[in-house]
Amino acid sequence: SEPALHDGEQTSAIAEQRLATRYDEIRRRTTSLCAPLEIEDYVVQSMPDASPAKWHLAHTSWFFETFVLKAAFADEAVSKDYAYLFNSYYNAVGERTPRAERGLISRPTVAEVYRYREAVDERMRALLESAEEPLLRRLGATIELGLNHEQQHQELILTDLKFMFGRNPLRPAYREPRLSGGTEVPPVRWLRFAEGLRQVGHDGNGFAFDNELPRHSVFVQSFQLADRLVTNEEFRAFVDDGGYDKPRFWLSDGWNARNSHGWTAPLYWEQTEGRQWRIMTLAGLRDLEPNEPVCHVSYYEADAYARWADARLPSEAEWEVATEGVEVQGNFLEDEYFHPQPLAVASAEGRLSQLFGDVWEWTRSPYCPYPGYRPAAGALGEYNGKFMCNQMVLRGGSCVTPRSHIRSTYRNFFPPEARWQFSGIRLANDA
Amino acid sequence: SEPALHDGEQTSAIAEQRLATRYDEIRRRTTSLCAPLEIEDYVVQSMPDASPAKWHLAHTSWFFETFVLKAAFADEAVSKDYAYLFNSYYNAVGERTPRAERGLISRPTVAEVYRYREAVDERMRALLESAEEPLLRRLGATIELGLNHEQQHQELILTDLKFMFGRNPLRPAYREPRLSGGTEVPPVRWLRFAEGLRQVGHDGNGFAFDNELPRHSVFVQSFQLADRLVTNEEFRAFVDDGGYDKPRFWLSDGWNARNSHGWTAPLYWEQTEGRQWRIMTLAGLRDLEPNEPVCHVSYYEADAYARWADARLPSEAEWEVATEGVEVQGNFLEDEYFHPQPLAVASAEGRLSQLFGDVWEWTRSPYCPYPGYRPAAGALGEYNGKFMCNQMVLRGGSCVTPRSHIRSTYRNFFPPEARWQFSGIRLANDA
Amino acid sequence: SEPALHDGEQTSAIAEQRLATRYDEIRRRTTSLCAPLEIEDYVVQSMPDASPAKWHLAHTSWFFETFVLKAAFADEAVSKDYAYLFNSYYNAVGERTPRAERGLISRPTVAEVYRYREAVDERMRALLESAEEPLLRRLGATIELGLNHEQQHQELILTDLKFMFGRNPLRPAYREPRLSGGTEVPPVRWLRFAEGLRQVGHDGNGFAFDNELPRHSVFVQSFQLADRLVTNEEFRAFVDDGGYDKPRFWLSDGWNARNSHGWTAPLYWEQTEGRQWRIMTLAGLRDLEPNEPVCHVSYYEADAYARWADARLPSEAEWEVATEGVEVQGNFLEDEYFHPQPLAVASAEGRLSQLFGDVWEWTRSPYCPYPGYRPAAGALGEYNGKFMCNQMVLRGGSCVTPRSHIRSTYRNFFPPEARWQFSGIRLANDA
Amino acid sequence: SEPALHDGEQTSAIAEQRLATRYDEIRRRTTSLCAPLEIEDYVVQSMPDASPAKWHLAHTSWFFETFVLKAAFADEAVSKDYAYLFNSYYNAVGERTPRAERGLISRPTVAEVYRYREAVDERMRALLESAEEPLLRRLGATIELGLNHEQQHQELILTDLKFMFGRNPLRPAYREPRLSGGTEVPPVRWLRFAEGLRQVGHDGNGFAFDNELPRHSVFVQSFQLADRLVTNEEFRAFVDDGGYDKPRFWLSDGWNARNSHGWTAPLYWEQTEGRQWRIMTLAGLRDLEPNEPVCHVSYYEADAYARWADARLPSEAEWEVATEGVEVQGNFLEDEYFHPQPLAVASAEGRLSQLFGDVWEWTRSPYCPYPGYRPAAGALGEYNGKFMCNQMVLRGGSCVTPRSHIRSTYRNFFPPEARWQFSGIRLANDA
Ligand SMILES: [Fe+3]
Ligand SMILES: [Fe+3]
Ligand SMILES: [Fe+3]
Ligand SMILES: [Fe+3]
Repeated sequence: SEPALHDGEQTSAIAEQRLATRYDEIRRRTTSLCAPLEIEDYVVQSMPDASPAKWHLAHTSWFFETFVLKAAFADEAVSKDYAYLFNSYYNAVGERTPRAERGLISRPTVAEVYRYREAVDERMRALLESAEEPLLRRLGATIELGLNHEQQHQELILTDLKFMFGRNPLRPAYREPRLSGGTEVPPVRWLRFAEGLRQVGHDGNGFAFDNELPRHSVFVQSFQLADRLVTNEEFRAFVDDGGYDKPRFWLSDGWNARNSHGWTAPLYWEQTEGRQWRIMTLAGLRDLEPNEPVCHVSYYEADAYARWADARLPSEAEWEVATEGVEVQGNFLEDEYFHPQPLAVASAEGRLSQLFGDVWEWTRSPYCPYPGYRPAAGALGEYNGKFMCNQMVLRGGSCVTPRSHIRSTYRNFFPPEARWQFSGIRLANDA
Repeated sequence: SEPALHDGEQTSAIAEQRLATRYDEIRRRTTSLCAPLEIEDYVVQSMPDASPAKWHLAHTSWFFETFVLKAAFADEAVSKDYAYLFNSYYNAVGERTPRAERGLISRPTVAEVYRYREAVDERMRALLESAEEPLLRRLGATIELGLNHEQQHQELILTDLKFMFGRNPLRPAYREPRLSGGTEVPPVRWLRFAEGLRQVGHDGNGFAFDNELPRHSVFVQSFQLADRLVTNEEFRAFVDDGGYDKPRFWLSDGWNARNSHGWTAPLYWEQTEGRQWRIMTLAGLRDLEPNEPVCHVSYYEADAYARWADARLPSEAEWEVATEGVEVQGNFLEDEYFHPQPLAVASAEGRLSQLFGDVWEWTRSPYCPYPGYRPAAGALGEYNGKFMCNQMVLRGGSCVTPRSHIRSTYRNFFPPEARWQFSGIRLANDA
Repeated sequence: SEPALHDGEQTSAIAEQRLATRYDEIRRRTTSLCAPLEIEDYVVQSMPDASPAKWHLAHTSWFFETFVLKAAFADEAVSKDYAYLFNSYYNAVGERTPRAERGLISRPTVAEVYRYREAVDERMRALLESAEEPLLRRLGATIELGLNHEQQHQELILTDLKFMFGRNPLRPAYREPRLSGGTEVPPVRWLRFAEGLRQVGHDGNGFAFDNELPRHSVFVQSFQLADRLVTNEEFRAFVDDGGYDKPRFWLSDGWNARNSHGWTAPLYWEQTEGRQWRIMTLAGLRDLEPNEPVCHVSYYEADAYARWADARLPSEAEWEVATEGVEVQGNFLEDEYFHPQPLAVASAEGRLSQLFGDVWEWTRSPYCPYPGYRPAAGALGEYNGKFMCNQMVLRGGSCVTPRSHIRSTYRNFFPPEARWQFSGIRLANDA
Repeated sequence: SEPALHDGEQTSAIAEQRLATRYDEIRRRTTSLCAPLEIEDYVVQSMPDASPAKWHLAHTSWFFETFVLKAAFADEAVSKDYAYLFNSYYNAVGERTPRAERGLISRPTVAEVYRYREAVDERMRALLESAEEPLLRRLGATIELGLNHEQQHQELILTDLKFMFGRNPLRPAYREPRLSGGTEVPPVRWLRFAEGLRQVGHDGNGFAFDNELPRHSVFVQSFQLADRLVTNEEFRAFVDDGGYDKPRFWLSDGWNARNSHGWTAPLYWEQTEGRQWRIMTLAGLRDLEPNEPVCHVSYYEADAYARWADARLPSEAEWEVATEGVEVQGNFLEDEYFHPQPLAVASAEGRLSQLFGDVWEWTRSPYCPYPGYRPAAGALGEYNGKFMCNQMVLRGGSCVTPRSHIRSTYRNFFPPEARWQFSGIRLANDA
């Protein structure tokens, strides 16, 4: 799942923020995430939905080359083969390697891919530093899109590496564990929101993906929202109660998914012979921590848990109404936990905790176009619009999302079966 | 896709309508639809989503036996095996034959299934005629649900038979053709609807499925709606323009479906060697009639067509707002065309035509619970709620839907890939 | 698996045997096997390898029409559609309905198929009774082939019906049980055969399929053969010993098959809650009879059993050497048990029992062309030759094989995974 | 496909050949084959039947550790995880990573695998140099087996790398091309062999796999054998004649394979837009050389070609009879062409050329146990015996087989669909 562009009054803002500096910072962050890797770790594709780290590094560079450099300079691609190898899904740009075959490609080597990144970076820097105002004005929004795209792939690099290490019987660690403190988690308190006509969607100040637009009215019935995320301990009660064996809690498609995949617990939970739960993390395998937010559940599991708990998942409009004006703070990529953390401080009466970061929160809303939605023209119109079917919206970002990437109106989306993302649960209810 | 129960002030209404008479009429209609069949035609399952006619006949009887007769009398089922064979998907009722294996069962014979129907009918009549008031009051809503369920299977019997005959190289006819006149179809006129806070969902007077409840407020942006359905001729222009070969018109999942199924035209269209289009109908194979509404398209094809036509599909709220208060008339099962008909009379200026009957109209709305939705208690809660994922809403009924079954608030739903239903297209647009 | 033609000195023999009478007898036998069926039973295809009874009835008629009547008279087929529907696998004759889709076809009806049979029979009778000598001489071998082909499909009708009834939760019976007596089964005695240069293959006197030709020399090492078939009781000891759970007894492909199909016992064995074994027969479900020959095992199970029993399966040359000159007698189709029977009389010292009839005996020999093998010219060359890969030879006929169909040189063949044939086990060993 | 052990009078011979020296040479050859690789090239599994180079390096070491070192010293494995990761298919040794998932494992790294190799080599050298006579006598045959096993994996390393590079759109080269001269290829001459009772199988002098034993009598009918291999030019004539489109040349299973895989030419042949044939080699993509032996055909294609050419494939007995006493010379791994070469010198009248090396020659013989065959006891009994089903025998070795590995009695085996081995065609015929 990826993003597309909405331009507007941005170019002046971009100029102020010194786009060149942000370009360097974000691009450097991507490579620094790969610092702990062995060459071998860059190559493997552990399932069709995941991509090798090498592919992510090349694809994000291909994005700038294809949509910015080619538009700026009428020159050739670095390599026609690279265009074929590192295009993700842009039909308008041409043929590409099938998604499930990204792990068959030992060449170009990791070193060659880094050289490709550097070649793109050099040209991008030349463009950013010397380009005439009109050219930058024309391309500024696309460069901004490219940077947000890069951030999305930063998150994917970590989710995909985790999945790869998780399928390895050695359960290797991406890096050393790092733990926050975290208090005992208090019981959930429910916050009530009154019904009314609300505005949702992005207001056009600053960057947003096209799928957040236009801002529009929606009537929201009164509802309640849990003040914190569901924890491992709470979810384990569902497991212990036979939640995975009782079809009455599950959607029909969810029950089928549970049967065909043999789900008995969230992804990365494994039971020892002594029936202790262990959990795979980016720091390797360790005991399940009861106070952490539950993570790596599919929409089907989140929905079944909610039904078992006599609640439901929030709609995306409810979530957005509840978070409007709340400051974006939480456990993000920059905190380098790379894992959801227990609630740091019990939330103040009447306040919602853990809204941003930690885990993406499944909503009950299918991913649809907003009323009046228009995809961008040209190939970049494929960024978001064509995926608006059979996916569910998630909100709030996770512990592997860059902080500057997220906002209250941000819409992430994945198929209801997906579990390898850092996806968790906040409960809602009618009021 | 099937329904669930909402009871309320219905029992008195039921009494007035003489439930016993309606029971007889509706049950008789089902068997009369099977009159043209050979024994062999009752047995075949032509794909996993379709069922043998024999199965429909038995399953609808099993429904009354299981949910009414067993609740009324604490006696045994006619046969434990029948409970296994003819349960569709009610987990709460027990194990059942896998959906894709309904065509493996030559026994019970058709004659035995008819005897089973008669045994159920006899007991139901005894119940309806002699039962004490309190018993009927308790079961009235379930009987009403059973009758609506029966009507749904009447439609399925015809759609499934059509699919079966369509896969037979002999292209047998279910019965003789019957054609209405139909005028030349005039150009589409667009009707504009102003934005505003609207009420959608059923108001509780008379029968409704639980998924139509509760009636609730929704803010609808201004929109336009085409005054008639898309015709075969219009859809053929999309085909001739290479619409099936241009990914830019398609959702990503739709493009995958088109590729994996090799779609090049709607279901039942076939091209002769002279490149004439022929179409399979319940009266056999014949030339494509340009003025008929296009039918048997998936959501993906409807959506791609709309994008090609610079329009979009309506949301279900838009459709319901536009049809509120419109009389339910059109080409229905009782008209016995069993095929969508050309527009009979050009619609009056400012009026919408073909809203009911002819073809189910795909909406852009995923099938979701309404705010405050509560499924029925017990096994009948499985009727609708558990399917609220990965399906799209269709509205208005078709030429094989019983007239008394449909209303403005009625929500049908199928996966976006489904083509064997009588599903067509009405265009909408932002205003 | 089917046969092909070898002509020679046969026409005079054919004349003597009154081909017309045999034609009538064999064709009548086919329809009499269908006498117990309901119309519904004719229609179902219970798996890709099985065919509906209706299809068998039509296909055997199509065979005579295509290969005899068309060659005799230059007239048209009864129906071009029938040629498409009822061709099994003859590429040289044209396109055909895919094998797995034979159960999708409710039409032609059973009555129409019987009319088709009668139309073919009438023309065949006219040909047989009035044809000039040279015509009959030219076609005699093909007619003989057609009759043997018909007999093969008689066996398939029963095996396919059994599989269909076996998948039906009602476990319907094809007809009433009929049981022979049978003595207590004595321990196996081993007969020893000395090594030497032997002749195998058919000698050309009377009918044989092309795959039995030419007769040729083969050097056979000394070997031992069990004097009777393996019984259910013996096989149950293998089951009880965990034979299905120990990979060391299994071929690698067999172990994979066991895993992917979840085999824990022969086909048609089912265990009650009290852990009693029950067995599905053409007379319905009943207790497992310990003295009956084990039946409905795949080659993989036969091979694993043999390894467990410290023995092996015989080669087809060994089997043929051992049965040369032995009279063809046993429990065949005409005996109408339709099920393997316990040993009637303990075999005399030094004599082999149960060689013919009861169950097909798996050999360890892959199905290959004999040295010098030549398939027939034209379409009938597809009868046997093109299947000579990935199949194993079985010998001796079964309780559903017509007696006149079998002989010592007869080679049946099925893939090693096949279990729905009446296939069993005779052990051999090195000597 | 791999080997198993037959011990006998070998230990003294082993002593004479200085096993320690051969161990070093063969182990060093394996790593030298990997010298041209980038780290990335070691990791990829390009299809379920192929393995990553890293896996081959570890698995061959695991073999010595498991079957030799553990038997010699009762110590622990280097790593329990390695035992899981690098066991190929030995059920008796324990669970293992599924075959198709060997490419999911980025760790252990290549460097770690090389350290594992070195640790095993060190212990093996210590054993070989200092072990007491009785210990070496007991383990000598297993060590010999391990060296032959290593050689088999040397061949697999190259075939698997070729397949991996062949799936990469960049078509990378394993190393620089190296070409022999090669004369114009003369027409085939046929050599005739008289019928008679022959001896086949290994005589027990020197190492052989258990599947070559015991030597035994077989009656071979008179036959003819082509004096050389089929060339690319000859095979292209089959392609140009529509050989891939005419079912009459194909086995039934072969025709199905051709259809499901879309075969139109041998593996690694690709056609340019100008309809020139290009061919992928271990030195990259280049023009098809008409005089080279055709290579990378499945059994089905070899069989279809032979039928088209009015010939057949030889049986393995025929091949062995014809090569008995012929010196093992040809284009082998040590020649470092890594590709079949055109006939160097026209073969002398009455002599067979290209028998050894260049390409494995498909025979028409299914892979079966020889009469009296006994697999080795214990886990090593799984080496050959359990694969004796659904595979065909190939003879003679290829351009990537070590010369010392091959002999006249050597039986290689692959499923009839396999194309990624260096497999080609020699024609035979009845005489
Ligand atoms: Fe991307
Ligand atoms: Fe139903
Ligand atoms: Fe046949
Ligand atoms: Fe190996």
